[in-house]
Amino acid sequence: MAQSFLSVVDAVDSLSYSTDSSFYSLIAHDGVTPIGLVSAEIATYFRQEGNSIITDDAKKSITIKPEYDTIAKRNELFADIAARWRKLPAFNDLLDKGWRNELYTVFNPSQVPYLHLERAFSVLTGVITYGAHLTGYVPADKTSNGKLKLWIPRRSATKPTYPGMLDNTVAGGLGYPHGIWETVVKECYEEAGLPEDFVKTHARSTGVLSYMYVTDDGRVQPEVEYIYDLVFDDETTVVPLPVDGEAEDFKLMEIDEVLQRVRQGEFKGNCALVILDFLIRHGHITPETEPNYHEIVRRSHRRLPFPLR
Amino acid sequence: MAQSFLSVVDAVDSLSYSTDSSFYSLIAHDGVTPIGLVSAEIATYFRQEGNSIITDDAKKSITIKPEYDTIAKRNELFADIAARWRKLPAFNDLLDKGWRNELYTVFNPSQVPYLHLERAFSVLTGVITYGAHLTGYVPADKTSNGKLKLWIPRRSATKPTYPGMLDNTVAGGLGYPHGIWETVVKECYEEAGLPEDFVKTHARSTGVLSYMYVTDDGRVQPEVEYIYDLVFDDETTVVPLPVDGEAEDFKLMEIDEVLQRVRQGEFKGNCALVILDFLIRHGHITPETEPNYHEIVRRSHRRLPFPLR
Repeated sequence: MAQSFLSVVDAVDSLSYSTDSSFYSLIAHDGVTPIGLVSAEIATYFRQEGNSIITDDAKKSITIKPEYDTIAKRNELFADIAARWRKLPAFNDLLDKGWRNELYTVFNPSQVPYLHLERAFSVLTGVITYGAHLTGYVPADKTSNGKLKLWIPRRSATKPTYPGMLDNTVAGGLGYPHGIWETVVKECYEEAGLPEDFVKTHARSTGVLSYMYVTDDGRVQPEVEYIYDLVFDDETTVVPLPVDGEAEDFKLMEIDEVLQRVRQGEFKGNCALVILDFLIRHGHITPETEPNYHEIVRRSHRRLPFPLR
Repeated sequence: MAQSFLSVVDAVDSLSYSTDSSFYSLIAHDGVTPIGLVSAEIATYFRQEGNSIITDDAKKSITIKPEYDTIAKRNELFADIAARWRKLPAFNDLLDKGWRNELYTVFNPSQVPYLHLERAFSVLTGVITYGAHLTGYVPADKTSNGKLKLWIPRRSATKPTYPGMLDNTVAGGLGYPHGIWETVVKECYEEAGLPEDFVKTHARSTGVLSYMYVTDDGRVQPEVEYIYDLVFDDETTVVPLPVDGEAEDFKLMEIDEVLQRVRQGEFKGNCALVILDFLIRHGHITPETEPNYHEIVRRSHRRLPFPLR
C-alpha cells in the first residue's frame, strides 16, 4: 500500500478536540456562547480592554460585556480595538501590514450575523473564517496525453502570507456582504482572469471542509472552506492567467507531480487538503491506495466548537 | 431558501457525541479499548456470560476477560455466544431469521483485525459495521430529456430489514475476507446483474461517510460506508436488473422525484444520506439551496468513538 497523506490533515487539524488548556475562550455578550479561541499572548492585550471585555484567567475566558447587546455596538467595539492595536509594534505585521479593509462575519447559534470585524483582526481572535477554494482541471479525455491535469498557481513572492507556495487554482475569503457563489465568480475573474460566463457554466459546488489549526506563532484558526470544481474544455482555449498579482503563474500539472509537491510541502497547508479532497472525490485516492482514508476524510470535516454560518 | 434536508442526517446521526448514559460500553480484553455500545436490554444477556465477560453496572461496561488474548480465542468465544443466543426467543428475528453465515471484522487501534463475528450478531454488540454504497446515474447530457437521472431500486418486500423501501443502486456489507473494491464489483453483479468489466471501467471511489444511530428497538449502529459513483453511458445500453431478489425493481428517476421521495421518507435512512452526499458532490445541493449545508456535510462524516479499519 502506498505511503499515507495523513500528514496533510495533521497539519491543518492540529488542535485536539479537547481544547488545549493554554487558550482563552472568546465568549459572546450572553456570557455563555464561545465564538473564538485566543492565545495566552494575545489575551494579555485583551486584558487591557477592561472597559468592554472581561478577561478571567481562572476560567481562561475573554467575555464581551453584556451591554454590547446589538451587532452595531459590537462592530463599533471591535473596530475601535482593531484600530488601536494596529498601532502597536507587536501587531505591525499581522494587523497593520495585513490590514485588508474587508469585513468578516461571526455568527450566533441561530446562523444570524453576530459581529462584523476587519479580516486582519479576525486572525487574532480565533473566530471561524469562511472561504471558497476552487480546483481547475482538464479531464483525462481532454488532455494531450490522456491524463487528468490540475491548474496550479504559485503564490506571489510578495504576498504577506505563505509567499511563493503553491495554491488552489482560485481561493478567496468570504467578505461581508458577499455570498459564496458570488465570491467564487468574482475571485475567478480577479485572480485568474476567468470570464463570468465561463465560470457560471463550468464550475460546480462539491462540498465543504472544516478544520482548526494552530499557526506557527501560536494563534488558533478555525476555518470552513466551501469547495468547487472548475472543469476546463481543453488545455488551451480558456486558461487561468495572473491578473491581480496574487498568483505568480499558473501551471498545468499531472496528478503525480501535484502529489509529489504535496509530499514535499510546497503547497499552503489547507490547499493541500483541498487537493486531497479533489483526488478522493475523483477516485484517484481510494481506500485501496490510502491506509488512513477514513481518518483523512473524517478529520477534513471536523466539528468546530463555535456557532456556524 | 429551500426547505432543509437536515432531518435526513438527524435520522442516522441520532446518538449524541457525549454518549447516552443508558448504553454499556463493550470493552476489549485489554480492559480499556471500547469496541462497541450495547443497550441495557441486551446487556442483561451479556450478564449471563460471566465466565468470559464481565458486566459492570456501575461503570456501564461489558469487558472481555483478559485471557481472550488472541483473535482465534475471541472468534471462538463470540461464535459460541452467537450460536447459543440464536436459540433464545428474544433473538429469533434478529439472530435466527437474520443469520447470514457471513463474518464482519472489528478492528483494534492499530487497524489490525481484533475479532470476526457473525454479521447478524454484530448488530447486537454495537460494533462499527462497514459497507459500500454505489449510486448509478445517467449524466444530464446522456438522457432523453437532458436531466440527470439516478437508478433507484426498491427493496424486496420479503427482505428482513426495511422491506419495500427505496435504496441506493447497489449496496453491500463488507464481509471477511473481502476487500472494498472487490465487494463493489461482486455486489454490482449479484444485486443488479452489472458485468464486472462495465463496473471496473464506469465506477469510481468518491469518499466515505460515517454516522451512528439508534434503531427503533434501541440498538446502537455505528456505520462506515465507502461511497462510489457508477456512471451509465445512456439510459438503455446497460441497465441494472434484479438478480438475487434483493431488489424488486430498478427505476430511473429525475432528481426532483428522488428528493420528493427522500422527503416522504421512502428511502432507507442511510441510503437517503448517500443520495444527499451524491447531490452535494455533483452541485445539485449547494450552500445557496440548503440552509444547513455545512452541518449536513460535517455530521455525515462524524467521528466514531471506536478503533477504525
